[in-house]
Amino acid sequence: MGRKNAFYGQSGGVTAVINASACGVLQTARQHAEEIGKVYAGRNGIVGALTEDLIDTSIESEAAIGALRHTPGAAFGSCRYKLKSIHEHRAQYERLIEVFRAHDIGFFFYNGGGDSLDTAFKVSQMGAELAYPIVCVGIPKTVDNDLPITDCSPGFGSLAKYVATSLREAAFDVAAMCSTSTKVFALEVMGRHAGWAAAACALAEPGGGGSYVLLLPEVTFDEERFLSKVEQAIERDGYCVIAMSEGVRGPDGEFLSASRLKDAFGHTQLGGVAPVITSLISMKLGVRCHWAIVDYLQRSARHIASETDVQHAYAVGRAAVEFAIAGRNAVMPAIRRLSDAPYRWDIIEAPLSKVANQEQLVPPDFISADGFGITEAARRYLAPLIVGEAYPPFRDGLPDYVKLQNLPTKKLTKEFTV
Amino acid sequence: MGRKNAFYGQSGGVTAVINASACGVLQTARQHAEEIGKVYAGRNGIVGALTEDLIDTSIESEAAIGALRHTPGAAFGSCRYKLKSIHEHRAQYERLIEVFRAHDIGFFFYNGGGDSLDTAFKVSQMGAELAYPIVCVGIPKTVDNDLPITDCSPGFGSLAKYVATSLREAAFDVAAMCSTSTKVFALEVMGRHAGWAAAACALAEPGGGGSYVLLLPEVTFDEERFLSKVEQAIERDGYCVIAMSEGVRGPDGEFLSASRLKDAFGHTQLGGVAPVITSLISMKLGVRCHWAIVDYLQRSARHIASETDVQHAYAVGRAAVEFAIAGRNAVMPAIRRLSDAPYRWDIIEAPLSKVANQEQLVPPDFISADGFGITEAARRYLAPLIVGEAYPPFRDGLPDYVKLQNLPTKKLTKEFTV
Repeated sequence: MGRKNAFYGQSGGVTAVINASACGVLQTARQHAEEIGKVYAGRNGIVGALTEDLIDTSIESEAAIGALRHTPGAAFGSCRYKLKSIHEHRAQYERLIEVFRAHDIGFFFYNGGGDSLDTAFKVSQMGAELAYPIVCVGIPKTVDNDLPITDCSPGFGSLAKYVATSLREAAFDVAAMCSTSTKVFALEVMGRHAGWAAAACALAEPGGGGSYVLLLPEVTFDEERFLSKVEQAIERDGYCVIAMSEGVRGPDGEFLSASRLKDAFGHTQLGGVAPVITSLISMKLGVRCHWAIVDYLQRSARHIASETDVQHAYAVGRAAVEFAIAGRNAVMPAIRRLSDAPYRWDIIEAPLSKVANQEQLVPPDFISADGFGITEAARRYLAPLIVGEAYPPFRDGLPDYVKLQNLPTKKLTKEFTV
Repeated sequence: MGRKNAFYGQSGGVTAVINASACGVLQTARQHAEEIGKVYAGRNGIVGALTEDLIDTSIESEAAIGALRHTPGAAFGSCRYKLKSIHEHRAQYERLIEVFRAHDIGFFFYNGGGDSLDTAFKVSQMGAELAYPIVCVGIPKTVDNDLPITDCSPGFGSLAKYVATSLREAAFDVAAMCSTSTKVFALEVMGRHAGWAAAACALAEPGGGGSYVLLLPEVTFDEERFLSKVEQAIERDGYCVIAMSEGVRGPDGEFLSASRLKDAFGHTQLGGVAPVITSLISMKLGVRCHWAIVDYLQRSARHIASETDVQHAYAVGRAAVEFAIAGRNAVMPAIRRLSDAPYRWDIIEAPLSKVANQEQLVPPDFISADGFGITEAARRYLAPLIVGEAYPPFRDGLPDYVKLQNLPTKKLTKEFTV
């Protein structure tokens, strides 16, 4: 294959470091100008490919591309849009080929989680099925840390560092107040199915003695045992700190979250599980509780990103380009752990067919016997992922993040709507 | 007055930097060993004085005292406990005198907000009214930034930096997602009566164009005008970012917060205003919203503290000791602004009688004409307060905060309960 242009798309929920992967892709592509011409970024991922809304990244300065390494969000826009199979929706693939051919695109990089890597896998089959030669490489990203094969998912380490730091700080707060005021603080974190974020909160406990109480989606909520655990913590320490996954479920298999709540008008509220659980504690134990739901903040908190995570994110971006140049289609760079302490890792190649639509939950041997904590094995796994600070530059007291120009490329095909 | 021991108490809700004030008090007292003997900290503020639960700070190492400068929470425990007047509750003051006399305490430092400074003022009157000579100095602290005379309140600058950083990061997130998913992100911040925290969020907006929408308690919530403002932002930018004070009120004067919510059991929920407002937006504008309530995290986030704020907090602690040694009773060090840019400030003396039980709201000339933003005057005031990063040391990927030994001093008086 001669020199070809490339497409790069960001997809799914953003992370603090997905732009570090973009930085890895773009800087590495620029170093291989003999194989890769322009890199066009899709505005809002695959939607940009379908609508021919392509951003010519070559007009961005080296400095701007470099600043992506410390900028959260998704610099080119992301999307929640899943391609159907070629057999189900052939017209969409023919449209992709029309756009790719018009812009001489021979490389396709897609940066996302399970659903997005499924899209990447489908695109990778276009060469065989629709006779359009393309080298397609997925780039892993998800704060949920639920991708298979890769030891961890870029994005998760920074989320873990943020939630653990936040809970440690809140624990200092409630410890100071518990004598005459609040005795329970609960932090709700992401994790609809997998409890990785809540598990990481256990790292915050000084000494790691297991007195923080975790609620993971992998463990069915047992009200009586939970209240007893909280009561014990209050008796021993004067206060209790709780980290809960948004996806905690009761014995009936239903989410405990406040979707059961109605507002004054009878409308169901957008809610969380933290108000429900703390309300229960107040009612049953008669203690004052506070709670926080950090929502997007936890996946955008680039100011407290993990340096390890930033390095992972950059490395998978760089490796994706190297794989593509080597002609490796339908693969994804994955992180392989070589040792826990000292933490050592490298990048290996994973087949996209085995990555898409999988979900790695927190395994049973990572969850303590009572279900409210994590084991030493979990600590050994989690600890290296939050190590190192990677502060962004600050200006006027605030992080100085880059906004790219993101100018549209001239359209060469007819209009197409998705 | 010969050499005397001192009492130091922390009171009210904690901040990211109240321990920096403690550090200023303790380090400065140690430098004046000829005037000040031991510094006893009250365990949980004035409660520790009443119950004779005194912590001998002299056994703490220089390193531990120094580490208070970067540690959130309240190292000696805080309290929500307000003394009645001497005439209403003379027995409490006689008890204080009993404890102070037993431990040869001649200096009283009390570190807190409006209510706590009221307590400090009352204690300062004991010399005249009960013939116990004591020099009493208040030390300002409150994330609410609502104290009079002082240009700002230590604790607020760090909260402001945290909420503005968080909102900027969340704005990058929603900007990336808005094309196919969430279009509105709302952050609820502290401020029951004064909207300083929400006002500070406006600093996050790149360019400061006023497209962030603020809801302040100083401005009555007007549903129609608010929805129209949000709709305009979505039309123009594709998304809207909202910062709201917990104390936003409707035209009926009632809080909009989710205290109106009932859970499935009919119990009132501990709630916030963010779910109520975003539910309204979803219903009326038909767009997907996300929200966060950061609660204690915002006043404990020492990892993203403002260096200016840390300097203020330390300086008022140091000045309090200097005022006390000079025999200045019933005063408080206050921050005086000398210029906005370059930002210059010094410390002046304020009478406690004029500080207690006051509440400084965001003034009308700081609020934009439409009520949803801030003016240039507000920006000039707020901007210097968040400048500078004062990162704590990290160990194993998490902030390395100090826990003091906090050993109890031998009791010399009979038991007393509050």
